[in-house]
Amino acid sequence: MPPPLWADNTDGAGQLVHDAEFYVLKAQHGERWAVEDAGLQAKLAELKEKHGTPPNLIHIMWDDTAYGDMGIPAIQKIRGFDTPNINQMAQEGILFTRMYTEVGCTPSRAAAATGRMAVRNGMYNIGMLLESHGLDDEEVTIAEVLSEAGYATAFHGKWHLGDIEESYPHNQGFDEAFFTGYNQILSLNSDVAEQGNASLGLVEDLFPKDPFMLDDTFITKDWVQIAEGTKGGETLQWRDNSYETYEAIDPEAQKRTLEFITRNAEAGKPFYVANWPMMSTFLPTRPKNCSVARAMLQDGLQCNVDVFVGKLMDHLEELGIAENTLVIAMADNGPMSHNPPPGTGFAETIFRGGKGDFLEGGVRVPAFAWWPGMVDAGQVQGDMIHITDLFTTFASLGGAMDNIPTDRVIDGLDQTALLLNGETHGRRDYQFTYAGPRLGAVIKGNYKRHMISPDPVGEASGIPAAFYFLPTDPREVLPMMTPMIHMKRPFNRMVLRHELWKKKYPDSQEKHGIPWTGVANASDAVKAHAQPQMVLKDLPFDPLEYIEHLDQIPFDRNMDPSLGQ
Amino acid sequence: MPPPLWADNTDGAGQLVHDAEFYVLKAQHGERWAVEDAGLQAKLAELKEKHGTPPNLIHIMWDDTAYGDMGIPAIQKIRGFDTPNINQMAQEGILFTRMYTEVGCTPSRAAAATGRMAVRNGMYNIGMLLESHGLDDEEVTIAEVLSEAGYATAFHGKWHLGDIEESYPHNQGFDEAFFTGYNQILSLNSDVAEQGNASLGLVEDLFPKDPFMLDDTFITKDWVQIAEGTKGGETLQWRDNSYETYEAIDPEAQKRTLEFITRNAEAGKPFYVANWPMMSTFLPTRPKNCSVARAMLQDGLQCNVDVFVGKLMDHLEELGIAENTLVIAMADNGPMSHNPPPGTGFAETIFRGGKGDFLEGGVRVPAFAWWPGMVDAGQVQGDMIHITDLFTTFASLGGAMDNIPTDRVIDGLDQTALLLNGETHGRRDYQFTYAGPRLGAVIKGNYKRHMISPDPVGEASGIPAAFYFLPTDPREVLPMMTPMIHMKRPFNRMVLRHELWKKKYPDSQEKHGIPWTGVANASDAVKAHAQPQMVLKDLPFDPLEYIEHLDQIPFDRNMDPSLGQ
Repeated sequence: MPPPLWADNTDGAGQLVHDAEFYVLKAQHGERWAVEDAGLQAKLAELKEKHGTPPNLIHIMWDDTAYGDMGIPAIQKIRGFDTPNINQMAQEGILFTRMYTEVGCTPSRAAAATGRMAVRNGMYNIGMLLESHGLDDEEVTIAEVLSEAGYATAFHGKWHLGDIEESYPHNQGFDEAFFTGYNQILSLNSDVAEQGNASLGLVEDLFPKDPFMLDDTFITKDWVQIAEGTKGGETLQWRDNSYETYEAIDPEAQKRTLEFITRNAEAGKPFYVANWPMMSTFLPTRPKNCSVARAMLQDGLQCNVDVFVGKLMDHLEELGIAENTLVIAMADNGPMSHNPPPGTGFAETIFRGGKGDFLEGGVRVPAFAWWPGMVDAGQVQGDMIHITDLFTTFASLGGAMDNIPTDRVIDGLDQTALLLNGETHGRRDYQFTYAGPRLGAVIKGNYKRHMISPDPVGEASGIPAAFYFLPTDPREVLPMMTPMIHMKRPFNRMVLRHELWKKKYPDSQEKHGIPWTGVANASDAVKAHAQPQMVLKDLPFDPLEYIEHLDQIPFDRNMDPSLGQ
Repeated sequence: MPPPLWADNTDGAGQLVHDAEFYVLKAQHGERWAVEDAGLQAKLAELKEKHGTPPNLIHIMWDDTAYGDMGIPAIQKIRGFDTPNINQMAQEGILFTRMYTEVGCTPSRAAAATGRMAVRNGMYNIGMLLESHGLDDEEVTIAEVLSEAGYATAFHGKWHLGDIEESYPHNQGFDEAFFTGYNQILSLNSDVAEQGNASLGLVEDLFPKDPFMLDDTFITKDWVQIAEGTKGGETLQWRDNSYETYEAIDPEAQKRTLEFITRNAEAGKPFYVANWPMMSTFLPTRPKNCSVARAMLQDGLQCNVDVFVGKLMDHLEELGIAENTLVIAMADNGPMSHNPPPGTGFAETIFRGGKGDFLEGGVRVPAFAWWPGMVDAGQVQGDMIHITDLFTTFASLGGAMDNIPTDRVIDGLDQTALLLNGETHGRRDYQFTYAGPRLGAVIKGNYKRHMISPDPVGEASGIPAAFYFLPTDPREVLPMMTPMIHMKRPFNRMVLRHELWKKKYPDSQEKHGIPWTGVANASDAVKAHAQPQMVLKDLPFDPLEYIEHLDQIPFDRNMDPSLGQ
């Protein structure tokens, strides 16, 4: 297929480049949107006049929760827990019924940070311990975009966007950062893990020495559990890798977030803060069970995340800035229903699938917006919104659209109209959902097509029958061909335009490197990751060369993309 | 096993007999309950003093709806429809999160009518066309119980409790009845059915004659689609069996219900009315599509059932009797997710399974209570309640407990405290769910055990691993044995007591007979069902004898119990 001849009709220089599908909508609604946008700008100017700054922006994002497990008491009663503060947030603002994320933690976080789907920014792999991989410094984050517009920016909590130095959040535009490179599996580095939930590699030192072990380099020796840093300043490991330190991460992150807010509110400076909690540990925590469900997920949501959200809302009101602050609270992907630690409470609710799946259950999450006076209370919105839209909407609200690069596709659409004008004012009716680097499913309105089919015959012949109508089949168990035969052409067209657009704006590749360089107080074992030659000096190859080739690990259609988070 | 020696300690003569499990609870809570009941009686006496009559009772029950598909806007948005009136009812009253029914239409309706599980009243078979089977006149219905206490009683809509004369609702205690003996499949008796959704037997006359047909008696010739009658009066078929008549059933039933209410409100007579709508047809009804989902279920709920519920609430308020009227609105079982007609919109939501299954999805339904001034608004109740509890609770509210027979097990518990005192005041923590005549599952609090296991090895060895903890596993996909090993003994004990109690109070058998006798204006073809000898006079056997043996149709573990509704 020859490269397409795309007219450069994306409104010329300085205009954002979106997915090809956006322009199909813009051609139909552009004039109406321009009028609506003028009204929104007037409303925001009035707010700025009143408060002296553009609005503050807070993004709370926790792990692995099924739609309905938050914000809907009639589901939570079934699931054995309660989150009164988040439910209040939903009642006083928006409950999104179609907030889509990427399929896993790393991809979703990268999408939120850059406004670009993980397949575009090279972060589609889910980071595990010492992944030697992270967010490319060529990516432009929301922190960079807003910093340039005068915002104070902070990141506190589970970053999970890599262990290479350029990926650290304070190297990606945040004024201050307190961050983990990885996920909650770190919590298994504990003698408590011996209770039966152990990750053997992590607790190797706690076990009797294996007398048959020949290779002392295979087992992971040390890493950085949690680090801190400031823009342009040094990076420091915070405390040690113990379970006690793990448990201190969320309280410390929450304290820092509230202090950051106070400091900037008092200084009259607009701010953006992302607090992405660890939420829970992967260990049984019986003494702290707080929910009827007596499970990790429910306990973490009820007695950690929800309590913090309550404190946060109170704090904003006490500081008198609630009416000038947008809070978005959401999960980063569906429940860890595949390969969960035992007894953790993860479960599908309405949708089929969970983390790692391109089914609705993997990517359709509980999500809420709260902004007293600006966002109407009691909204249950049916419009589609994608996690990348937060990037662009934050930039729009912060008057920072000009700081977004126009040399690449920004998937995020400006959804200010949806927030401020309510249901049916959304700008999105499509979504491409990738499973790792492969396109897994395409959604257009209520129609969905699976691009990876469990039926190899159908797929091979080019006519997979996997068309779905979501309202009547939210679990995607009734693939249809006959009643949706007319859907093949428009879906084909949509996918091909999406692919052709990539010829002009190609996806970025993964960025690899030595993990945890530039940490001033790193242990000798962490520092040794950069000098393995010292240990294995007699090798016939460069022991670090493999790092350059990490993206060549074969992704197979039968590989379970849900591993890790 | 010898018959058990049960002490006759059910509080002596005149006391209801409940399942054995109830007495385990009563022994622990009886004194508290007695105090609470005295308070409730005082409250009800005060209400009666004010209004002059005990409360009116209205039971609305529609078909086959998944938990969450009604009353929860954040789920309905996903499912492409809206029911503002029922949602208002939920907000102004109780949304039950654990209303359990029987597994199918006929069993659930029989349970509601008699306060007894279908396995006890012989109605566990789901009635199909000319079933020759129906509710035994030995059963005592809520209409009989309340009539005797001075209530006016009416039934309007889908009865589905048989086609034998004794089963007609006006022969079962209702003052007036307008009723179908069967289900919505009747709607396929139409030339419209040729559009592709046809039940071949029903439209036989509409097709060209089959030149190879030898047996003229096999195909169903005629039946009674909808009939009416009054207590002690004659029974009449209403109009004909056409599709037009089918579509007139719900409007007519709704009109009769509202008129019945007006008449009794004006006469100052307390009343009980069951309006169980047909809801929809099984035909595609494109011209009437009203929901975003464009499907039968959603259309029927949004534009028929919900509209009627709105009219009903308005009507009660206009008549000034809303504060003296309890309205219960609910589904009769889970969604028809097995063997549905195409494009109908039935789907699982949170729970796995649908109609016919002993999984939560089969028996845990949307249900609401509304009683302004008596039932507090905005309740999302976590207590268990079973459809049979409505029988006993209605009798209790109507001052008619003494009219309930004490020679049989009444599964229904008096849940007045749950209605009037709110969450945690329920009297039930157990449920036995039968699949046809077999015990399928047992629930105790949040614990559930499947008694019919898909794993024949486990079942045969007496240790099926099918123990579930519902909050963390609402879809029942993670059977546990190790963490729930301590559950085998208490479940065994509970099941055995339930079975042993049946030695003293045995289950009733199915009641069979000639269908549609006693219908004054029946067609000759309907009347001929009683005289098949006239047609087949040369047979070597009595052609009606098989009717006596209908309950000997073998029920196999592999038989799909979801067929029909």
